[in-house]
Amino acid sequence: MNVLIIYAHPEPKSLNGTLKNKAVEVLSKEGHNVKVSDLYAMKFKAALDGDDFTDRVDKDKLVIPKEQMHAYDNGTLRSDIEEETEKVKWADLLIFQFPLWWSSCPAIMKGWIERVFLQGFVVNLYDNKLYDTGHLAGKKALISSTVGSSEELYTRYGLHGDLDVHLMTLWHATFEFTGMEVLDHFLVYKASVMNEERVKSELERFETYLKAL
Amino acid sequence: MNVLIIYAHPEPKSLNGTLKNKAVEVLSKEGHNVKVSDLYAMKFKAALDGDDFTDRVDKDKLVIPKEQMHAYDNGTLRSDIEEETEKVKWADLLIFQFPLWWSSCPAIMKGWIERVFLQGFVVNLYDNKLYDTGHLAGKKALISSTVGSSEELYTRYGLHGDLDVHLMTLWHATFEFTGMEVLDHFLVYKASVMNEERVKSELERFETYLKAL
Repeated sequence: MNVLIIYAHPEPKSLNGTLKNKAVEVLSKEGHNVKVSDLYAMKFKAALDGDDFTDRVDKDKLVIPKEQMHAYDNGTLRSDIEEETEKVKWADLLIFQFPLWWSSCPAIMKGWIERVFLQGFVVNLYDNKLYDTGHLAGKKALISSTVGSSEELYTRYGLHGDLDVHLMTLWHATFEFTGMEVLDHFLVYKASVMNEERVKSELERFETYLKAL
Repeated sequence: MNVLIIYAHPEPKSLNGTLKNKAVEVLSKEGHNVKVSDLYAMKFKAALDGDDFTDRVDKDKLVIPKEQMHAYDNGTLRSDIEEETEKVKWADLLIFQFPLWWSSCPAIMKGWIERVFLQGFVVNLYDNKLYDTGHLAGKKALISSTVGSSEELYTRYGLHGDLDVHLMTLWHATFEFTGMEVLDHFLVYKASVMNEERVKSELERFETYLKAL
């Protein structure tokens, strides 16, 4: 299948960089086609703003869903957004590889979602095309994340609350919202205190996970 | 008291812009001191990366908490971050004014949190200074947000799930994590289909809310 890895970490030598490289290696060996959107390396524009729209319907007041719809329908998307929408169309599986920052994905990845998951492209709120009838139905999504804290802190009665609940904003209200099927998360806890042995064992666990896809 | 409004919307004429202006007006009249960080107008750098650190401890590998700690302790923060940390220190209340995008705050605001809420400044994970002992204890935080959908969609068994649960990533795992006390959210639902009358009534409700602070 076709796999798009959306990867966000500013340090190529980070655990996230290592996991991303591992995914490319394992998935390619398994015969899948793999593309990577390395958001930091691409210096991906993180903030959605008026500059995203080269041909505004309303030049006086920016109403985002309206402009996204218009730009998508009329092929006037900025090229950096267009390239990403093409990759998403191509992909059967989207892997979101990121470090958990403030219990969610990095701003640059949130910005990718805001700018690429356009109204009219991934959903159509005017026609009620969302969730089961979302435009990305048939595709799959995977959250692959590194978590600085221990798992205990991210349980229901742990200090931070249940991590799966924090991530619901992504897996449910974003990915399922577009129609995608969400796979079990791949999470590496205590990522802030890794040693060589744990890196090795987590990479093996990731390889096993990816081979079973 | 001293109030810092962190405001994120690319359109000054938006409902968020109007709410922000209302807050400045009402709070000033009430005798409070008000500062605004208008993130879009400031073209605030949304992505946390190596450029944030002018004097790296480790030039070979970027480890963010370590560099944040070092930069904060040694006064080598980038000026755009330094200006924001000074505003946060000054403030008794932080108001986060934003449109709900993908069930959370815009990327540019998430980036503000990642870059300004530095390790060593708002918490100290090495010394276990977080939540009740977080460095921002004594300050208050308020989420003021506009929500495109109706309230029904954001209930426990609604299509998107409970909005307060989605926002927990901000109010609990971010604001309470730093020690801040969180006030009741001010939410305007169905913000995508406002008319003059509803704008007027929501602004009055906001004024009443702010006067009672």
